[in-house]
Amino acid sequence: MAMMVVIYPIPKDVEAFDQHYFDIHVPLAKTIPGLRSYEINAGPIVTLVGNPHVHRIGALYFDDMAAIQTAFASQEGQAAGADRRLFAPDSSGVQMFLFDTRKM
Amino acid sequence: MAMMVVIYPIPKDVEAFDQHYFDIHVPLAKTIPGLRSYEINAGPIVTLVGNPHVHRIGALYFDDMAAIQTAFASQEGQAAGADRRLFAPDSSGVQMFLFDTRKM
Repeated sequence: MAMMVVIYPIPKDVEAFDQHYFDIHVPLAKTIPGLRSYEINAGPIVTLVGNPHVHRIGALYFDDMAAIQTAFASQEGQAAGADRRLFAPDSSGVQMFLFDTRKM
Repeated sequence: MAMMVVIYPIPKDVEAFDQHYFDIHVPLAKTIPGLRSYEINAGPIVTLVGNPHVHRIGALYFDDMAAIQTAFASQEGQAAGADRRLFAPDSSGVQMFLFDTRKM
């Protein structure tokens, strides 16, 4: 499997962020080809160590990194990426990591 | 489900970090009661946005946040936490997030 982890900092307007996220971004992201599972935090995020100013975390699962590359090169992937930059610009402190996973 | 995401920055000595991680930390962490699944990056971590200096990411899955609390209060959880502070001190830039998840 491969994972995409997206860590969103606390936005200036939480209500507007969540409205955009749930009404526009999630439906767009769910159309991305090859997306196997999409999970987000269901409540508060507890920071044990590091940056406590995190509002939301998304974990998106694909078959492998090649599938992620294909996914984000697709029209749907491009649209989801463009939308993300509207409500969480690169300069906002958002973090996005992609990696193949192995089971321990 | 609930997730614990641990993001380790690139250490000064990558080889020593990985040796400690795989030889000592993973076996300790796998004894934590209630741990349902434990995955890490299998290769390079691609940073799309944010901090590119990430060496390793761990994703640990539990039934819920209550199970995580029980897990980390246990002797095994305490031992894994103490061990983590040896190879990735709080001041190293490590990030650890805990949260219940919901499926989108």
